[in-house]
Amino acid sequence: PRAEAQIRALIDDWARAMRAKDVDGVMAHYAPDAVTFDLAPPLISTGADARGLQAWFSTWQSPLGYEIRDLNITAGDEVAFCHSLNRLSGTKTDGERADIWFRLTLGLRRIGGEWRIAHQHESVPFYMDGSYRAAVDLKP
Amino acid sequence: PRAEAQIRALIDDWARAMRAKDVDGVMAHYAPDAVTFDLAPPLISTGADARGLQAWFSTWQSPLGYEIRDLNITAGDEVAFCHSLNRLSGTKTDGERADIWFRLTLGLRRIGGEWRIAHQHESVPFYMDGSYRAAVDLKP
Repeated sequence: PRAEAQIRALIDDWARAMRAKDVDGVMAHYAPDAVTFDLAPPLISTGADARGLQAWFSTWQSPLGYEIRDLNITAGDEVAFCHSLNRLSGTKTDGERADIWFRLTLGLRRIGGEWRIAHQHESVPFYMDGSYRAAVDLKP
Repeated sequence: PRAEAQIRALIDDWARAMRAKDVDGVMAHYAPDAVTFDLAPPLISTGADARGLQAWFSTWQSPLGYEIRDLNITAGDEVAFCHSLNRLSGTKTDGERADIWFRLTLGLRRIGGEWRIAHQHESVPFYMDGSYRAAVDLKP
């Protein structure tokens, strides 16, 4: 279906912009009032945060590795959601090597004929063995 | 709008079933092939798991406290998503008192005229201070 193909193209372009650390290229795909549940606190953020993304990109010394697996899109005419397992990898400015798989859910709306990300939820689960450690070591 | 009211009613009923530890009442609202990103590992689960839910309910000695805050619903004719901040509280069978706020995103589809949960993503963020601790102590 056409909506699904449009959303797949949006996500391809968004991932390409992530890899290139291209703030404008990433931000272009969000609704202005997007609500985000990030990997890091706080619980919830509202509004596309270009400065925050720029600051975060600047903590990486290398281009980002960004892989999207098992992307599943459910699209109506005006509203859609999708989920996937994503891998983020690279080297931080302090030399730390990062490589983490996490879950991504997006909620999308068609605004002025264009699909936009209206909601983003990224997470890893955590171990319920009393340690409350984030499960950053899981692989799909 | 009508779809939004239907979904709000679904979520009210689902939360009521959670509080009552009513497995069938919870399960009635899921699509058979629902894809779940849970608070606990693994990264991803597929298919509504009534036995798993029953086992989890049996780890609680009290009725569950289940509060839903800031529910935001975006609904088309056939596809919808919503997000909220939820509070789960109660006493485990080992006497431990639990009280946690987490983020919930649902993806919904209309199947045979009825809205069903096709995707569920629950999480807390984690601290990026090197501890990798799940942020189970945040409040909205």
